[in-house]
Amino acid sequence: MKRAAVIVAGGSGTRMGSEVPKQFLLVAGKPILQHTLEVFHRFDEDMCLVLVLPHSQMAYWENLCCQYVCSVPHVVAEGGETRFHSVKNGLAMVPDDVEYIGVHDGVRPLVSMDTLKRCFSGEADAIVPVIDLNDSIRYLYDGGSQSVDRSRYKAVQTPQVFLRECILSAYNQPYEAAFTDDASVVEKAGHAIELTLGNRENIKITTPLDLRLAEWMLKDGLS
Amino acid sequence: MKRAAVIVAGGSGTRMGSEVPKQFLLVAGKPILQHTLEVFHRFDEDMCLVLVLPHSQMAYWENLCCQYVCSVPHVVAEGGETRFHSVKNGLAMVPDDVEYIGVHDGVRPLVSMDTLKRCFSGEADAIVPVIDLNDSIRYLYDGGSQSVDRSRYKAVQTPQVFLRECILSAYNQPYEAAFTDDASVVEKAGHAIELTLGNRENIKITTPLDLRLAEWMLKDGLS
Repeated sequence: MKRAAVIVAGGSGTRMGSEVPKQFLLVAGKPILQHTLEVFHRFDEDMCLVLVLPHSQMAYWENLCCQYVCSVPHVVAEGGETRFHSVKNGLAMVPDDVEYIGVHDGVRPLVSMDTLKRCFSGEADAIVPVIDLNDSIRYLYDGGSQSVDRSRYKAVQTPQVFLRECILSAYNQPYEAAFTDDASVVEKAGHAIELTLGNRENIKITTPLDLRLAEWMLKDGLS
Repeated sequence: MKRAAVIVAGGSGTRMGSEVPKQFLLVAGKPILQHTLEVFHRFDEDMCLVLVLPHSQMAYWENLCCQYVCSVPHVVAEGGETRFHSVKNGLAMVPDDVEYIGVHDGVRPLVSMDTLKRCFSGEADAIVPVIDLNDSIRYLYDGGSQSVDRSRYKAVQTPQVFLRECILSAYNQPYEAAFTDDASVVEKAGHAIELTLGNRENIKITTPLDLRLAEWMLKDGLS
């Protein structure tokens, strides 16, 4: 089975309080993006890896790759105005013979081999990894908030993996602001989404605390 | 302003894969519960602390306190059948002159001083600390799931802090299974809930990974 992964890295450093965009920050001695590429390559050496980066960051990434000797084969696609447009650009670079395409957040280097196996099993047209919520949640409405039943909700991670035709046709839809992740795009096109188990370590590195947690986990080989 | 905190520790070790109930596990050299008591005591030395424990664990805790020289003054109340009943038992031990009562999960030792200040500010009858969700979430219905707008939801932490009369009258209601936290009990009694900012480190220690994260954060003095 031929697989591809579109790894989306469009973030700035805003919430990280850093000049360097978060995907380039060093964790356990290497840029975050390099860890992410390596974990996919370790899972399947033949997987086609497409990295989506803002145009302005491409040269920077090339330099980083040389400096940290990133030897994982990958192609780079140019990011778009929103995540939707970035993913669409990445999908356009996936070779025609690929059957299953995963879309992954570049700043999730801690996805486990087991999560990758479950997501790329080829048993569903559209599958996303989820975990239970640790905390209670409240729903905000205009002017207030209310308790909701936490057991009815799951936190969604990536990679979200789709049959090729399924995601390509979904990304031919016009853009909507309600598209928060790839599952929501594919769902809007009428496909049912299957859920599988993610792994709790698979955090999206967003804040300085996340960065430290990732550092600890990557050093301890937790993923 | 006279304050109290009811610290609820009813957990078994099931999800932790441990014989010892999770609240007694050692983190950074001390039982989790001791860290939790210490952070409240550090925030306000005059605060009345009520620890709620299952009857079967009271002697064990007393021994631990001696062994690890826990010098934070506190009283112990007996846990009930559910969290609701445990909190109710704890509230019964709060002295009459207390104005604001917080209810806190015993396994959240990483609540920050800033979060405690915001929660115990005395500016609202009912206030709970919340943080943004890092991941997208999906709502599960019978037979499927769907994307929801994550920005409409917040993750709820503790301490949840209430004006004395407000929480006492709320806990006089009959028990309902839908009571997932104290805010939901107080809300059901007709009170509006204010939200304030929690802190991301303030995790509920539930799994072995949480335990390691807490160990790292407590050692680094992150809270």
